[in-house]
Amino acid sequence: MDEVRIIEIKKSIFEDNDRDADNLRKELKERGVFLLNLMSSPGSGKTTTLISAISLLKGKLGIAVMEADIDSDVDARKIKEETGIETIQLHTGGMCHLDAEMTRQGLENLTLQETDLAILENVGNLVCPAEFDTGSCCNVMILSVPEGHDKPLKYPLMFSICDVVLVNKIDVAPYFDFNYEECVRNIHLRNPKAKVMPICAKTGEGVQAFTDWLLTEVKNWKNKN
Amino acid sequence: MDEVRIIEIKKSIFEDNDRDADNLRKELKERGVFLLNLMSSPGSGKTTTLISAISLLKGKLGIAVMEADIDSDVDARKIKEETGIETIQLHTGGMCHLDAEMTRQGLENLTLQETDLAILENVGNLVCPAEFDTGSCCNVMILSVPEGHDKPLKYPLMFSICDVVLVNKIDVAPYFDFNYEECVRNIHLRNPKAKVMPICAKTGEGVQAFTDWLLTEVKNWKNKN
Repeated sequence: MDEVRIIEIKKSIFEDNDRDADNLRKELKERGVFLLNLMSSPGSGKTTTLISAISLLKGKLGIAVMEADIDSDVDARKIKEETGIETIQLHTGGMCHLDAEMTRQGLENLTLQETDLAILENVGNLVCPAEFDTGSCCNVMILSVPEGHDKPLKYPLMFSICDVVLVNKIDVAPYFDFNYEECVRNIHLRNPKAKVMPICAKTGEGVQAFTDWLLTEVKNWKNKN
Repeated sequence: MDEVRIIEIKKSIFEDNDRDADNLRKELKERGVFLLNLMSSPGSGKTTTLISAISLLKGKLGIAVMEADIDSDVDARKIKEETGIETIQLHTGGMCHLDAEMTRQGLENLTLQETDLAILENVGNLVCPAEFDTGSCCNVMILSVPEGHDKPLKYPLMFSICDVVLVNKIDVAPYFDFNYEECVRNIHLRNPKAKVMPICAKTGEGVQAFTDWLLTEVKNWKNKN
């Protein structure tokens, strides 16, 4: 195979969000609210996955959802309609991600009195959300089958910061050139500790493995000083 | 249906890229190089679409490709291997988009002597690339069927700045809740002038309508003072 030339283009990125995120994490710990940050490309199935997961978690945990989008409120309406839980829509004013301060603005608009688990559905984007700690207790991402098993190679940071990668739309795998084993290998290249779980959010297949994991995480976190 | 609360989160975005982009456009006009900026979510099929389009355009136009990614060179290798044309990989150093100055750095690494059409495959991202004029003569985006027909509602800017929206993976539409007519309606809500073309990059279905349009665009642009 021919060699191709690689040109490194650099641009600096500013930071001072990490302290804000740590402070938010401490405050949430005091209030007993576990914050989950859910990320993916546009159209990977974040909302459908949440609806499926919430139906399994309802009654076991108090849950509230923040839907972040640049525009529209279709997702928040869908979640509220299908699950009945407290849901708000965050509009980011064009911003491509949420940082800790923006997440805090969202949390301030939730009741949180009986909430054990607050879920942030981040802006659909595999790049920028990975660069900003939201103050979450865990990061979960969805990679959907149609996107391809090579994505961990192209978007390394996102895969390296996630505790769990849900491989969604596993039902349509036969119609795509998608190799699950290679996908898992690529994810573990970036993040050997990442838990990888195949799911079909539409049918609910595999979602319980994820909610079981999440229940244990929340429980362990609550018991930790 | 229940109302959901919407909280507007604001953050300013800096700009002075527009002048750079205009200057680059002028220089490219003098050199007779038409720059196309191709954008989409991760995994929508940018590279496969390019390979399919280039196979129809080869011999009619001198073409060069710049593949922008945060990491890896799988796409640039694939394009070079399958089309034989001049291809370079741009690594963005973590950046989520290319602006005019970064595009210029890429162009400086191409020969461009017999190039009529330079193609920039932007970073897979529906948000940030839309905010930065690259200096291109036209913007083309791909929305793939598995992403869903609601994307123009959630990512308004991207759809509003594109001359053409290619609706890719049209072959798998029967396996998804995808409504093509609603998709076109949503796109035209954002951008009444956008040309929308259904394609299947893998089989080549519909790609010639796009390359015919592009050939005419390049020809008209060359003839314009």
